[in-house]
Amino acid sequence: MKKPRLMTPGPAPVPEDVLLEMARPIIHHRSAEAKQVITDCAAGLKYTFQTQNDVLILTASGTGALEAALVNTVARGQKVIVLNAGWFAQRWQKIAQAYGIEVVSLDFEWGQAVEPAQLEAALKQYPDTVMVCATLSETSTGTGHPIEEIGKIVARTNAVLAVDGISGIGAMECRTDSWGIDLLCVGSQKALMLPPGLGFIAVSPKAWAKIDAFDAPAYYFNLKAARKKMVDFDTPYTPAHTLLMGLRVALRRIQDEGIEQVWDRHRRMSEACQAGIQALGLELFSARPAEGLTAFRVPEGFKEGDIRGKLSDRFGITTVGGQDKLKGKIVRIGHMGYFDELDVVAGLAALEMVLCDLGYKVVPGIAVTAAQKVLLSAKA
Amino acid sequence: MKKPRLMTPGPAPVPEDVLLEMARPIIHHRSAEAKQVITDCAAGLKYTFQTQNDVLILTASGTGALEAALVNTVARGQKVIVLNAGWFAQRWQKIAQAYGIEVVSLDFEWGQAVEPAQLEAALKQYPDTVMVCATLSETSTGTGHPIEEIGKIVARTNAVLAVDGISGIGAMECRTDSWGIDLLCVGSQKALMLPPGLGFIAVSPKAWAKIDAFDAPAYYFNLKAARKKMVDFDTPYTPAHTLLMGLRVALRRIQDEGIEQVWDRHRRMSEACQAGIQALGLELFSARPAEGLTAFRVPEGFKEGDIRGKLSDRFGITTVGGQDKLKGKIVRIGHMGYFDELDVVAGLAALEMVLCDLGYKVVPGIAVTAAQKVLLSAKA
Repeated sequence: MKKPRLMTPGPAPVPEDVLLEMARPIIHHRSAEAKQVITDCAAGLKYTFQTQNDVLILTASGTGALEAALVNTVARGQKVIVLNAGWFAQRWQKIAQAYGIEVVSLDFEWGQAVEPAQLEAALKQYPDTVMVCATLSETSTGTGHPIEEIGKIVARTNAVLAVDGISGIGAMECRTDSWGIDLLCVGSQKALMLPPGLGFIAVSPKAWAKIDAFDAPAYYFNLKAARKKMVDFDTPYTPAHTLLMGLRVALRRIQDEGIEQVWDRHRRMSEACQAGIQALGLELFSARPAEGLTAFRVPEGFKEGDIRGKLSDRFGITTVGGQDKLKGKIVRIGHMGYFDELDVVAGLAALEMVLCDLGYKVVPGIAVTAAQKVLLSAKA
Repeated sequence: MKKPRLMTPGPAPVPEDVLLEMARPIIHHRSAEAKQVITDCAAGLKYTFQTQNDVLILTASGTGALEAALVNTVARGQKVIVLNAGWFAQRWQKIAQAYGIEVVSLDFEWGQAVEPAQLEAALKQYPDTVMVCATLSETSTGTGHPIEEIGKIVARTNAVLAVDGISGIGAMECRTDSWGIDLLCVGSQKALMLPPGLGFIAVSPKAWAKIDAFDAPAYYFNLKAARKKMVDFDTPYTPAHTLLMGLRVALRRIQDEGIEQVWDRHRRMSEACQAGIQALGLELFSARPAEGLTAFRVPEGFKEGDIRGKLSDRFGITTVGGQDKLKGKIVRIGHMGYFDELDVVAGLAALEMVLCDLGYKVVPGIAVTAAQKVLLSAKA
């Protein structure tokens, strides 16, 4: 027996009660029951995102939410600044370019956090910037970015702040309103503990002012159409409503645990995972690790494929490697959403044994012990 | 006890084995297992759509597939002809207009089938037409349109034929390749027996020629990007892969039954439903009924809400009324996908009893008997 253990930074494991909720008989998407599902989800999403802004539901991957943020707000030929420090930040750039939006890319080394001071300077240099595109948790490098500081800078300008919170929300502290996030884009398959297929976008009054003043070339992702329906807890087109039924259950879990407690749990898991990795003499890839995943460099003389392959073959653990220029250079371990401290301990135990098997010098138990010390010292 | 009986023309019931397949533990969307799911789905979709064309998978409602067909093929300022005979045909028009595409609308009375001769004349009048937008089954009126004849006409021109097959595919005969459908757009939540959340689009070489010659302003719905990934049975962005796992099971059901047998079953259910409705002295709304649903006019002196309300309250049956200008005037009963002859009989029995209760003159058993006669005479 090998139990499947999904330790990827999305899709992430889905709780059994959520899976079974989605296996209930299909209801009609315009029924009172379906409206109640959306009503409950809207409240749960607002709580989870820490916002009073409108939260809209899209039947799409998280990328659809990023596209919606851009195409509804920024016209062809207008300017955005992209805080570019990884594969997913580049997606902001690619979407913008597909729609003829001018991109000023502030490039940072992959694995480093973006530097707010550089953004401040760029906003002075380009006062006609309509939107700043940022990333809460850069999944490709396992880096958390200082959104709170970025928010303060953007708030002093006419630009709006759009944040890709896809792998960050629910795994890292994020206070949409008090941090000044104007367009928060989220996907369902990460720390929200759901399968992929839904995207969410929280829209601030500052963003609505721009959206309302712009006759955007958008239909499926038209946010004005979505807002009009959401007033009545409905959607413009048939939503993926089995996922919404599951979402309600998943959000109730977050509400029951408490969002601060959810963030704390991820912080503990993240610190425990980092401590274990470092105890093994491995190097963390990120200078400012995100809390939903941990990335480490493949040690000299070893192959990423061997490490990940053995984790899978021997222990049923799925992890991911690096993307693009990080291919073969890092291993990324997800610990987000339906994940607890013992899952992290189990993952580290497996990593120790696999490295040992591959001939890496390991003192058995060292990673697990280091993680346990972190967990013991933390206030649970 | 009232068993829930979803008799709406989408979402439609989902088989229990499909529901449970989607409740299995989450896998990673780039794993070999996930690739096999897409491989199997691609083959099953091609069989179901009767096509050798590329079939691409979108994480979106059917409307997203319609949008993808338009925005990848037709540039701003170019012309499309919309065969306009209902609420969903109008969606073609609205999407086109949102993107600055010029629309020639050929309007037909709601409930009538579109007339191919009028399209032929329009294509002569507008030889610069890039796309003809048609509907296989118009869900708002319960009408099936003559796509085979339309296909022959469009094939003789430079235009491509895009067909909204959302509520038609799997419920009505549709031979994508031999009928000359260049862009077939499908949604998951109708006769494909799945929850909403996936869209599909089958693209012919004639359509690809136009798409390849056009640098479309599209990112999330970019069909060239989808084709590039689909070669390797992958998708550009995280797909709704629990739905894909369910789709594989649903498609296997269609393959096991045989697509011609699936069409025959829907034809029998449709004819039985029509016979029952007419035996009750009710008037069918459509002059050319679609085979996945039956619409009838609310009889003089009765209220749509009363009929549908009693069907729901007493028997747990969900139906839908009319949309837009048909609000309050018709009742629509879905019988598509995971639906059999006895479900139709049960629905008619309930309708008889409800009408009786409401004071409508009914000879008990007359609708059911008429339906049974149809079913007995049909070759099963």
